[in-house]
Amino acid sequence: MLDVPELIRTKRDGGRLPAGRMRDLLEAYVAGGVPDYQMSALLMAIFMRGMEDEELDVWTDVMLHSGEVLDLGDIDGPKVDKHSTGGVGDKVSLPLAPIAAACGVKVPMISGRSLGHTGGTLDKLESIPGMNVRIGPERFKQVLREAGLVFAGQTERLCPADRRLYALRDVTGTVESIPLIASSIMSKKLAEGIDGLVLDVKTGRGAFMRTIQDARTLGATMVRIGAARGKRVRAVVTSMDEPLGLAAGNGPEVRESVEVLRGEGPGDTRSIVLHLAAWMLVIGGIEADHGRALERCRRAIGSGEALERLRRVVELQGGDPRTIDDPSLLPLGRHAKPLLAAKGGFVQTVDALSMGRACVVLGAGRTRADDPVDAGAGVLFRARRGDAVRPGDALAVLHASDESRLDPAAAIAIEGFVLGPEPPGPGTSLIIEEIGS
Amino acid sequence: MLDVPELIRTKRDGGRLPAGRMRDLLEAYVAGGVPDYQMSALLMAIFMRGMEDEELDVWTDVMLHSGEVLDLGDIDGPKVDKHSTGGVGDKVSLPLAPIAAACGVKVPMISGRSLGHTGGTLDKLESIPGMNVRIGPERFKQVLREAGLVFAGQTERLCPADRRLYALRDVTGTVESIPLIASSIMSKKLAEGIDGLVLDVKTGRGAFMRTIQDARTLGATMVRIGAARGKRVRAVVTSMDEPLGLAAGNGPEVRESVEVLRGEGPGDTRSIVLHLAAWMLVIGGIEADHGRALERCRRAIGSGEALERLRRVVELQGGDPRTIDDPSLLPLGRHAKPLLAAKGGFVQTVDALSMGRACVVLGAGRTRADDPVDAGAGVLFRARRGDAVRPGDALAVLHASDESRLDPAAAIAIEGFVLGPEPPGPGTSLIIEEIGS
Repeated sequence: MLDVPELIRTKRDGGRLPAGRMRDLLEAYVAGGVPDYQMSALLMAIFMRGMEDEELDVWTDVMLHSGEVLDLGDIDGPKVDKHSTGGVGDKVSLPLAPIAAACGVKVPMISGRSLGHTGGTLDKLESIPGMNVRIGPERFKQVLREAGLVFAGQTERLCPADRRLYALRDVTGTVESIPLIASSIMSKKLAEGIDGLVLDVKTGRGAFMRTIQDARTLGATMVRIGAARGKRVRAVVTSMDEPLGLAAGNGPEVRESVEVLRGEGPGDTRSIVLHLAAWMLVIGGIEADHGRALERCRRAIGSGEALERLRRVVELQGGDPRTIDDPSLLPLGRHAKPLLAAKGGFVQTVDALSMGRACVVLGAGRTRADDPVDAGAGVLFRARRGDAVRPGDALAVLHASDESRLDPAAAIAIEGFVLGPEPPGPGTSLIIEEIGS
Repeated sequence: MLDVPELIRTKRDGGRLPAGRMRDLLEAYVAGGVPDYQMSALLMAIFMRGMEDEELDVWTDVMLHSGEVLDLGDIDGPKVDKHSTGGVGDKVSLPLAPIAAACGVKVPMISGRSLGHTGGTLDKLESIPGMNVRIGPERFKQVLREAGLVFAGQTERLCPADRRLYALRDVTGTVESIPLIASSIMSKKLAEGIDGLVLDVKTGRGAFMRTIQDARTLGATMVRIGAARGKRVRAVVTSMDEPLGLAAGNGPEVRESVEVLRGEGPGDTRSIVLHLAAWMLVIGGIEADHGRALERCRRAIGSGEALERLRRVVELQGGDPRTIDDPSLLPLGRHAKPLLAAKGGFVQTVDALSMGRACVVLGAGRTRADDPVDAGAGVLFRARRGDAVRPGDALAVLHASDESRLDPAAAIAIEGFVLGPEPPGPGTSLIIEEIGS
């Protein structure tokens, strides 16, 4: 019989959980045979003591096989996905997936929703009228085959162990554990049936990983988990001190994504999208060299093929393709409030966390998993780090469908704009470090 | 609103729990407003991080006031109790309470049951035919007034928070935490309405505190908690490497207790009983000096007054007083099996843990809280540390009501008798260290 307190004590005292009993435990937990109060004590012990490589591999494997694992073997081409640990204004997946698809990668993208101050790809996609991200495995594969990419949410059948554990961690103070985060992400991604994966590990004020050291450890842990299963994984540590691009919010970020696919849009968004898309080509074996892959991605934008892929996937998933040709059809909250500079000077920083929190207040994000989101809510930035502003200049414009949310959001957002008399020194570079193959 | 995950994270990261929110949390937990899975994660964080003095005082205070607190203000004399952290053959409370009562201390003793390899005072008392330890507060005070001592179990109304927390700790690997043990013991003892307390903190192979360092820390923690509430507490660290006395088991230990009150019985039991009883007199202000208190306790035995107090309390609580005059009326399992020495030599050690486990197998103890116990089961020791034995000599005799339990118990018990060709060196002294006033 499974002695759960004994297993908890083993981990609590710094010992290693034996593989067989760890499997039994997780399987019993998913089946309802182990109560949440034992699992949460174990999770806290894991939080404190960490997990050795072999423990983590077993833990990930059991989660991965707790539900259905997609078999994409009958779809031609390399199957490569990309995952971001989340940030503010992080719309990278939206333009990246069509670019990679246009270059021959198959992108079976299963994404999440916004929670807290970070956005979620599914909420962004759903700001496109009609877009349906709740699709079953057959339709998922059909769209992937036809468009070269597909966007979907995690179904009930994918990694149920992870879903239960994540919900429990969320309410028991055990979220910020690197092995638990790594296994949660990797089990879901591996269940997609992919050959390889590109990871965008965000670090900084607006990210879950506040320090570069933590981001590096998380990235390396996920690369190792993938390698242990024969998957090529590249982790790129990128800066999330400031929001990415010039828009934060669901509809506003889809707009910026379309701009990038038109060869426009802000430089930081474009450069990170291209950098990561190029790695998908390398991981997928389409190009051997990142520089050549980058060139190929640029051509996919220049030729209009990448934008065409986005139009196609939107159409196949029930979305209105006219929004791709005319992004002004995308939702934008009809109530607006400019954020004015009280004094002149140089923008020292635009704090990502403050902007993320302002987005939540505007209605673009969630504080609870069942909160509705406002597709048109968000922040359009007018001034960025290093810009000179005069008193009364608009630093940003807030949008919401509910006018009463503008003032409380503005009070939070204005705190995130720090002005000073001199131009700021050089900031963190956007791409900080790279890990893995 | 109470943000429980935030409180868990605070403790997890080594911070201090604010008093007000800790109160709110524990009160909500007892009322059913905080789920077990959050409490168990917090308990594990406390296990790992410990508690500062002020946190522990609040925690103890909330548990203490989670139920009814006895008011013994209308009973004359100093109210002093004694608590032991539990061991094998530890019948000290049974002779000690009548001795202290005979010397003028009022002893309102609320005890527990056996669990695991350690015995429990309530189970021992219940081996006296008719003895009722389930008595309400009014009867409790009446017996205390008339006999000078009373023996009872914890009622539902006393420290319900502690009862719920203890049950949760038991199944979540969070038992062996010094602050949690200290607050559990002290909240229950303080709820008895006592003026002072003598603690017997056992250490060694047969105790929960394996090391002297842990026992010392636990003792000092409880002394400090008491002092913070204006109570005089003396903690005595005593050895539990070997069973105390010559009997382990419920009926057998009551027999030995009666022997001690007759001025007989094994020297180790008698000396620790007198040592701790004398401290109760000092704590209660009856004697200023431990040496004089010891003399007074000896006189209470010599005069027969202590034995008379035991007879009186047994009678008042429905027990058969004839068992006190004729201990052969106490239960002793009718099936017996001697444990024979396979070779000759000197007894190097009699391992307390092995003997405790053998007692459980014989039926004297419990592995689960709702197991019944066999009043007559136990081990009577014939050889002790340092004794010379010849091949075939009886080392001990096992007793049980269920004959089938003798062989499996013997297999465990024999492992605990270690023989060697030379006499063993000097062992740990019985009384190791003293802490507090």
